[in-house]
Amino acid sequence: MRTDDMLASHPGAAGDTALLARAIDALAECAQACTTCADACLAEEMVAELRRCIRTDLDCADVCATTLRLLSRQTGTDDALVRAQLQACVVACRTCGDECESHAEMHEHCRVCAEACRACEKVCTELLTTMA
Amino acid sequence: MRTDDMLASHPGAAGDTALLARAIDALAECAQACTTCADACLAEEMVAELRRCIRTDLDCADVCATTLRLLSRQTGTDDALVRAQLQACVVACRTCGDECESHAEMHEHCRVCAEACRACEKVCTELLTTMA
Amino acid sequence: MRTDDMLASHPGAAGDTALLARAIDALAECAQACTTCADACLAEEMVAELRRCIRTDLDCADVCATTLRLLSRQTGTDDALVRAQLQACVVACRTCGDECESHAEMHEHCRVCAEACRACEKVCTELLTTMA
Amino acid sequence: MRTDDMLASHPGAAGDTALLARAIDALAECAQACTTCADACLAEEMVAELRRCIRTDLDCADVCATTLRLLSRQTGTDDALVRAQLQACVVACRTCGDECESHAEMHEHCRVCAEACRACEKVCTELLTTMA
Repeated sequence: MRTDDMLASHPGAAGDTALLARAIDALAECAQACTTCADACLAEEMVAELRRCIRTDLDCADVCATTLRLLSRQTGTDDALVRAQLQACVVACRTCGDECESHAEMHEHCRVCAEACRACEKVCTELLTTMA
Repeated sequence: MRTDDMLASHPGAAGDTALLARAIDALAECAQACTTCADACLAEEMVAELRRCIRTDLDCADVCATTLRLLSRQTGTDDALVRAQLQACVVACRTCGDECESHAEMHEHCRVCAEACRACEKVCTELLTTMA
Repeated sequence: MRTDDMLASHPGAAGDTALLARAIDALAECAQACTTCADACLAEEMVAELRRCIRTDLDCADVCATTLRLLSRQTGTDDALVRAQLQACVVACRTCGDECESHAEMHEHCRVCAEACRACEKVCTELLTTMA
Repeated sequence: MRTDDMLASHPGAAGDTALLARAIDALAECAQACTTCADACLAEEMVAELRRCIRTDLDCADVCATTLRLLSRQTGTDDALVRAQLQACVVACRTCGDECESHAEMHEHCRVCAEACRACEKVCTELLTTMA
């Protein structure tokens, strides 16, 4: 990702953007993994048993995509909004990570997606801590 | 909007979906108003003074679009996630409504957008109360 | 929708924005209908037979949401891009309308969604004609 | 990116997914670069001269995000729709790449963003060729 370069070249770039760049990349990976996992679940023979997994995947993909947008902007940031959206994102990643993990032994796409959710939850939580 | 018809025809539709439909419609209106308001601010001669307004418009449009997606789904809903996303949405609408309102006398698009933000904040808050 | 008011208050508003406002509203309705239809299909007992419907719903919702964003902006518009995106949107609405229509007698949500897709395809086609 | 792993674990994965994975990653990078570039332009002193750049950035980010969603799905794919959306994406990337390139010497974020647009346009064009 060119995330680091983009953030560093921003006229409002402030100090250490490494954590921010890691969060943005993790959000992009998680959004993509969740979109593909929902679609892969849909293609499974046992799709009827994967309804909740598809739902949490779709929600998590949307929430991560929006959180990524907010974090990619540095101009006139409202910290309270970024915090609230990060909190929603942590819930989305945890919920989806738990759900995918419960199918991880049966479906490789759920295993990989759970990993992406865990990684994303972790870095978003870290970012929230620095904003406290 | 066909929102009522869509929700009513959902196999998992539960009881009174009127409030939900109102929230979905308000979110769609707010997302559209914010997208157009950001673009209208960009076209104003005094664009340099409208930076923060453009930023909150863009954030609010993204947050509303994602909240709308979550509320449009009824299958395997995770209440904690919906609540967290609604809370972020209330913050986004309040922040953007305040910002737009401060330019409302000078820019009609900010006045209309502030109204859409207020209406959206109100119905999301109402929905949050019923979920408590 | 406040779509008319928003477009009219844009400093770059040009002449007749009525068709544009109708297109924007139809896109918002279609995106919402498709998101809910995908979720309603997911909740049906015969979900395994509705895989393709869920897929076209999800694609159509995403394509309409992006087309709506482009049409909501009036500053520095690139006509070739708007045209190309409208063309993709017409394909998305036709594909999804056809798919949903084939289940319309069995699933009311597919019937309503097919209507929203048809209406959206029609107004996007109309808009494309005026841009030719 | 875990894009390769996700695509490979999809029950409908067909043969060589390497090009598809490259396209998905390029789309994610381009969407993120455009979102940050729009925001960086907004923070520049000469924002009034960057209006068109901000507009093409916002459009390109939205178009790439939707194209990424479509390519991430493999179930019940409609080739005509994927092709039409890829064509719109090629136009978006070319338009935004041209615009950003014209400011590349003055703004590093425009230079990096132009690179991301060019890379994305290239791989989307390549993908279109294989679908012909």
